[in-house]
Amino acid sequence: MQEQAFPDTSSRDSSDRDGGLNYSAFGARLEVPAINHLMSIPSEHPEVLSLAAGFTDNAVLPADLVRDVVSRLCGNPSGADCLQYGTTQGRKGLRELTARFVASYHGENAEVIRADRTFITNGSQQALFLAMRVLCDPGDVVMVENPTYFVFLSMLQGMGVQPVGIPVAENGSIDGMALDALMRQMDREGRKGRIKAAYVMGYYANPSSRCLSLEDKMVLAATLRRHGMRIPVIEDAAYRELAFERPWEVPSVLSLDAYEGYPLLYLGTYTKPFATGLKVGYGITNRPEWLEKMLFAKGNQDFGSAHFPQAIVEQVLQDGVYPEFVRNLGLHYGAKARLLDSVLRAEGLDRMGWCWAKPDGGLLFWLRAPAGVDTREGSHFYEACLAKGVIYVPGNLCFADGAPSDYIRLSIGALPNEKLEEAARRLCDAARNL
Amino acid sequence: MQEQAFPDTSSRDSSDRDGGLNYSAFGARLEVPAINHLMSIPSEHPEVLSLAAGFTDNAVLPADLVRDVVSRLCGNPSGADCLQYGTTQGRKGLRELTARFVASYHGENAEVIRADRTFITNGSQQALFLAMRVLCDPGDVVMVENPTYFVFLSMLQGMGVQPVGIPVAENGSIDGMALDALMRQMDREGRKGRIKAAYVMGYYANPSSRCLSLEDKMVLAATLRRHGMRIPVIEDAAYRELAFERPWEVPSVLSLDAYEGYPLLYLGTYTKPFATGLKVGYGITNRPEWLEKMLFAKGNQDFGSAHFPQAIVEQVLQDGVYPEFVRNLGLHYGAKARLLDSVLRAEGLDRMGWCWAKPDGGLLFWLRAPAGVDTREGSHFYEACLAKGVIYVPGNLCFADGAPSDYIRLSIGALPNEKLEEAARRLCDAARNL
Repeated sequence: MQEQAFPDTSSRDSSDRDGGLNYSAFGARLEVPAINHLMSIPSEHPEVLSLAAGFTDNAVLPADLVRDVVSRLCGNPSGADCLQYGTTQGRKGLRELTARFVASYHGENAEVIRADRTFITNGSQQALFLAMRVLCDPGDVVMVENPTYFVFLSMLQGMGVQPVGIPVAENGSIDGMALDALMRQMDREGRKGRIKAAYVMGYYANPSSRCLSLEDKMVLAATLRRHGMRIPVIEDAAYRELAFERPWEVPSVLSLDAYEGYPLLYLGTYTKPFATGLKVGYGITNRPEWLEKMLFAKGNQDFGSAHFPQAIVEQVLQDGVYPEFVRNLGLHYGAKARLLDSVLRAEGLDRMGWCWAKPDGGLLFWLRAPAGVDTREGSHFYEACLAKGVIYVPGNLCFADGAPSDYIRLSIGALPNEKLEEAARRLCDAARNL
Repeated sequence: MQEQAFPDTSSRDSSDRDGGLNYSAFGARLEVPAINHLMSIPSEHPEVLSLAAGFTDNAVLPADLVRDVVSRLCGNPSGADCLQYGTTQGRKGLRELTARFVASYHGENAEVIRADRTFITNGSQQALFLAMRVLCDPGDVVMVENPTYFVFLSMLQGMGVQPVGIPVAENGSIDGMALDALMRQMDREGRKGRIKAAYVMGYYANPSSRCLSLEDKMVLAATLRRHGMRIPVIEDAAYRELAFERPWEVPSVLSLDAYEGYPLLYLGTYTKPFATGLKVGYGITNRPEWLEKMLFAKGNQDFGSAHFPQAIVEQVLQDGVYPEFVRNLGLHYGAKARLLDSVLRAEGLDRMGWCWAKPDGGLLFWLRAPAGVDTREGSHFYEACLAKGVIYVPGNLCFADGAPSDYIRLSIGALPNEKLEEAARRLCDAARNL
């Protein structure tokens, strides 16, 4: 493993390769993400409607609210403060209000969810990156749900870290017995000691839009504990605020007794549920020593996230308007989800053998094609969709291992209603012509 | 080297160490940056005046300008665009205006300084981080000026990369003969092949506030070329816009024929010369394949910098007000530099044997103490300053190797004039009592 990771370059002149560019093991591993080609299609073919892009809906981005807040922030005598450098950990006021907000969810433990263990990042993605960077070496293993967030898989690939799927039953719940068997198998193979963390999405997961039940979370903790694996557990809650009706009632791992003794990291964001372009995300951990390492890493990397967007979000929280904003956002996306669901059903996609559950939150639909239909990039169905002018995320990209070839991910985020309807009809047309 | 970098953990149970936290080689290497304690002093002791902090001056942060721009951006019908996600590379319009701005400096080559080879980052620090990450493995070497940017040294330490000082004569110019000898020595030691990049600051360097002459840049290129070292050269121009009177006339390495065939990266920012809290920095490279690698790395790390601050800077550039803003900023800092210089001289610091050159740009004074005076943290002089209520950056922190113990770095950025005067008087008091 070491040899692969760090080729010995000492005997090679740097000028002999790639015109003077002699990449690190990390640099050499980096590949074009599988999703890049897909995501670039709409800019080259504007007639194509994208159900692939994970954008939020421009119609509900808070332009007026941000303008008002900036006007107040920059208008007062200490207005320059928000345009000055901040700290690597992020604004204290924002951390306090963030911790208070997360702790306000049903069942959360305010003694664990603390401002001094919260750090502000450039989207929650950066918090995830920092966590991985201080934990994982090439050759290490991270447990992920199957399916999981495909950008995370790409991050792990770059790091030379192997994702291993946490077994999940057909209904989406964590399969404790299969996980148990997997642990035993990894132990036999000498790989158990390389497992550095488990990564789960408890709320409207990307791509499945499923939530983890209390039992799922208990099963995961108990199974890991039974195998002596008191490893860091990272709960990505990026979509938690996007509940269509009421918040999912299961507390985060931070507040569950079952996770006593585990290093924990909760990832949250204001990017999806508030102002996407401000890119204010955060992490909350129960371990000061882990936090310190992540902050040292962040300090070296960017010396702290932009301070101005943090000041804007802090003011919005301070004004007390955030909870209502989030409720209205849930209603908006809930209506879009009902719209997409109804068009797919009206067009008869279910009767053609496609299966899906209408989500209760988030931005994504996760559909399984009928037996024998391949949905991967370049497949007959994929090309048929492209010819009709619609694209989706092929589900196989979202699996750590054992990827099935028959899932697709659709996003309700970016397209306005009439285009969302049209995109759904095009997709159903393609399915009908198979 | 490989063994040190990646301890074999396969036989060790993850739960046995540090309460479940089993860090990566990188995580294990991370240390408290030497500067952290120093930088935290003013928050715990508000009576202490900091000449250490690298902040900009609140008095010249553009609160009104930003408020006006945001009002227009968020007020127009497509206002939500700037609150949506952007791309990993950054806004096209901002990249175009940035490339045009850099190319407008005397002697720069607009054919090399191109928007499609420009990428927007969270401060120029992140561009530097991405460059290092795709180039350097633990055990590699990066050439830096002596002295150099201490945060970069901390970044290299975290990465396990060894900085080696580019020999510099007493007058600050690059010493070609000494560099030549160093290359030969590294070749004999088998370390030459591990040199992955050279990092220089051509304009008002941190901490020395020196600019590189055309000859300095030619000597560096010629010496490296003579040794077959066509390695990446990174020019950090973070302070370039902060010229007090007129811009330093030497073009960047991007535009010099002497660097033909070298992979080049120019680092710039709007953080120091415009709105610090927006944290909009950028890199410009001459190598598309290097750019692609850095963008893949950035995609995994944060999926693109915050879009809203980019839109603000783009609008300011579009409005055409940036060049005048920068000229006024130079006048402001120039006046502060004259003030600090005059107080230090009025207090007789030069007559006490301290040496410095009044800078022509940037935010920093770089002073050498008289023979025998130790300025390092914990030294008699350092403690005397602290007792008087003033702190500085001990110069030894800014050296890659062979650090002298008698330099200090003072910043004119953060303190308003009356406090800057007072801080200077306290420093001179401490020097007088030695």
